[in-house]
Order: sequence, then C-alpha cells, then structure tokens
Amino acid sequence: MLNRCRIVLVRPHYAGNLGSTARVMRNFGLSDLVLVAPYASTNDLEARRFATHGLSLLDAARVVPDIGAAVADCVLTLATSANTAGVVRRGMIGTPAEILPQFLAAAGRGPVALVFGPEPHGLSNEEIARCHGLLHIPVDPAFASLNLAQAVTVCCYELRKAWSAAVATERAEPTPGPIVAPHADQERMFEHLREALTAVGYLFGHRSESLMHAIRQLIGRAMPTPQEVKLLHGLARQLLWTTRQQPPGAAEPEADRSET
Amino acid sequence: MLNRCRIVLVRPHYAGNLGSTARVMRNFGLSDLVLVAPYASTNDLEARRFATHGLSLLDAARVVPDIGAAVADCVLTLATSANTAGVVRRGMIGTPAEILPQFLAAAGRGPVALVFGPEPHGLSNEEIARCHGLLHIPVDPAFASLNLAQAVTVCCYELRKAWSAAVATERAEPTPGPIVAPHADQERMFEHLREALTAVGYLFGHRSESLMHAIRQLIGRAMPTPQEVKLLHGLARQLLWTTRQQPPGAAEPEADRSET
Repeated sequence: MLNRCRIVLVRPHYAGNLGSTARVMRNFGLSDLVLVAPYASTNDLEARRFATHGLSLLDAARVVPDIGAAVADCVLTLATSANTAGVVRRGMIGTPAEILPQFLAAAGRGPVALVFGPEPHGLSNEEIARCHGLLHIPVDPAFASLNLAQAVTVCCYELRKAWSAAVATERAEPTPGPIVAPHADQERMFEHLREALTAVGYLFGHRSESLMHAIRQLIGRAMPTPQEVKLLHGLARQLLWTTRQQPPGAAEPEADRSET
Repeated sequence: MLNRCRIVLVRPHYAGNLGSTARVMRNFGLSDLVLVAPYASTNDLEARRFATHGLSLLDAARVVPDIGAAVADCVLTLATSANTAGVVRRGMIGTPAEILPQFLAAAGRGPVALVFGPEPHGLSNEEIARCHGLLHIPVDPAFASLNLAQAVTVCCYELRKAWSAAVATERAEPTPGPIVAPHADQERMFEHLREALTAVGYLFGHRSESLMHAIRQLIGRAMPTPQEVKLLHGLARQLLWTTRQQPPGAAEPEADRSET
C-alpha cells in the first residue's frame, strides 16, 4: 500500500530537499516521487549527497509540468500546509494522525498523492483547492514554517505508522507489552531478598520494616520481568552464601548508618 | 513542559544538521539544545543557513564534553536508535508514539533528555546503556538509517502531539509526581553499588557487565527518588562493611548460579 502513496513536490527550489525527501521516503518504505516544474535538479551534487540510500528513488522520480499531470491517475489527493489561515475549510481536513489512515485506506483503490508546495511560500490557495483535502502539521503558530523535507518526514512517518497499524489489525494479533513477573513470584523474591538483607545486617531493628517497604516500592514500581526476578533471587542467594562464610557476628549493623 | 525537553546531539558531524535541528525544534516549540563534543560548529555558515528562525536557539545551544555533563540534571534520559539489533532489550523501550507521552509527563518532575548519536553510526551500545530507556523510530528495516535532523523531526513532532493531548485532557495544573534523583546522583549510586556487588562476589567474570546493566535498567526504570538513592548507598556501604569483616576468599562467587 505504501508504494501507492505518491509524494508530489511542487516547484521545489533546493536540491538538498530533493535528496532528503528521497532518503526519508526510502526510510519509511515509500517509493513514488513526482516533481512538478522543479527549479532544482535531481542531478545536482547536493541532491545526490543528501539522498544516500534514496539515490535510486531520486533517479526514478518523474518530472511533470503541472499538478494536474502529477495526480491525474490518483483517487485521492491531499495538499499540505503548515498555515491553514485563509484556506477554505471544506472537505477532508486534519492533522497527519487524523487523516493519513483514511488516505492510506484509499490507496487500496488506486494511487493517492500528498502534495507539498515550494519552499518559500507553500502552495497557492488555487493549488490547495485542486486537491481533495488538506493536511496540516500541528506546529508552534509563532514559527510555523517547516522545512520541506522535514514536512515530508512527518508525513512519511505517520503513513508508515498507519500502515503498521493496518497490518497489525489485519493480523488481529494484539502486540503484547513486556511481560511482568506474576505477583506471587515477586512476593517469593521479596521474601528471599528480605532474608538476605537481614543476613548482611542491612535490615535490623525498628527501621527494617520501613526499609524493606521502600525497597519493595522501588522494585515493584519498575514492574520487574521474570528474568529480573531470577536475577534478584541470584543476588539474595549470593548474599546468603557470603554471610555463611563469615565468622559469627561479622554481619552486625554498621555503627554509622545515618543515611537510612 | 516542552521547554524542559532537551535535545542532546552526541558528536554531530554536519553543520547542516545542527541548523536543521534548531529550526525544527523551534517549529514544534522546543528550546533546549545541547551538543556533546561536536565536530561541527554552530558558527558554520551551513548551520546558520539551515537554522532560519531557529538561529537564536542555535546560539543558545550549550556545548559539553560528554553525555554525563549533558544529562547531569535530568530525571529521565532516552537514547534514540533506528537499529535496535544487538541492543539489550530491557527497560523502557518503544516507538515515539509509545513512550514520548511518558517522557513528557516526567518533564513535570525535572529536565528530560532525548539523546541522538553521531551521523555515521549512531550511539554506541555503552552510550545507550547509560540512558534510562531506548526510543526507536519504526522504519523500513532495509533502509533504517535516518538522517539525524529527520530523526529529531519525528521526535519533536510526536512530543508536540503528546503535549497538545496533555493540554487538552488536563486544562488544570499538571500534578507533579514524586521528585526523581538527578542523573549524576544516580550514576554515583550505581558506581557504589557496582563496587559493593563486586565485593560480595555477585558481579564477577564476563557476565558482570550485563548483570550490572540489568540492575541499572531495573532501578532506572523506577525513577528513584533522592531518598531511595540514599537508601541504596546505605545498602552498598553495608555490603562493603560486611565483606571487610570476612576472612579472605569468603566472597568468592557461589558455584551454582544458573539463574543469572
């Protein structure tokens, strides 16, 4: 589906942006790049330097004279704009997270296109009106002007996210989070730890309950995995083994323990 | 809250990436940029050309000699990596959408940092291990190497999304969580703990690094309070005191430690 998502750059000025766009498309699994009446050339040294592993994609980019030719075969086209002031708010409009899942779903029916304007001023209102919808990237309104390749980055990233989510729901397999050790296993580990910390003289007297409680709180909060619980059993065992090698009375509490 | 989210670039090579990073941070409302031993200079013409409206942010960027200095005051640090192969998969780990909301919430308790590696190869496994968690941007595994400034773009974009969502859901004052011990204090505590666990024979031989790493991940994930850090210093001190009372050779590793 991602190979049916086209990136259209309208009158791009800087060769570096062509290269960066090709590279990041490759990173996120897109491949269809179209340039409308570009000022910069894909043969420019800077374009090729910025493209790195996107070079083949840069070489395959089609150059067309106008937006119409770029999106002629598309079933859905979205204009992109950081600044939505003055734009007629009709049709499909939203942030990448809001509308790219829909956009991707439409790719099941034919090619779809994201249209990006030239660096200094973006798309004209007329060009925006030619598209089916409008995508705006939520930025700080005080500094709304995103670099072209960075705007493409955000869209490619969200497209791949939508694609991953679609693939995941198709498989209908929930992605499990990290496994946490069952409560009973944690309890056994804490008992083992209490025994060991008592043996080494860390837990003693009237403070031992509150100290042990603090340690339980700290480790419990981290939601230990079964592997980590085993690791702490290992620590307790080693402490007990060590104290058994000592002469009697060696593991008395240290005199100066003001920090506890 | 976004002004407490720090972007740390470790040994960046290309001036253009410094400028692009400053610009996109400004676009999404971030402002705290720290450079660790950079090869490129913020005074480089390319850095300034790429920065556009991010120039003031570029000028305010701090330069420090190592990661420790960059994150000393941080309550939470996330390493970023496109390639998670070979990285020990423990602790807080996830995509920007999965873990940046948590990251942003932690900023209520103190500065938090996203750490990005140098352009050619990213962060070393040792540098990743120094952070509390690992953020990976989901890309096409065949072309996983994202441009540095584009990786920063994705993270800043997701951070602003998380921030907007947080603002929308809780118009009221954000409830600050418990205070977290600064990174530098945690480092000192982990060094003390390493010394003590070595003395009792828990850390030994070729497994000691991965064991210590697992303990760091577990405790780091819990975001220990200053009080808890003191408590762990107390434990380390007690273990060291105990082993000093022993006859030589008593703290040899236990033979049967299959669980570690």
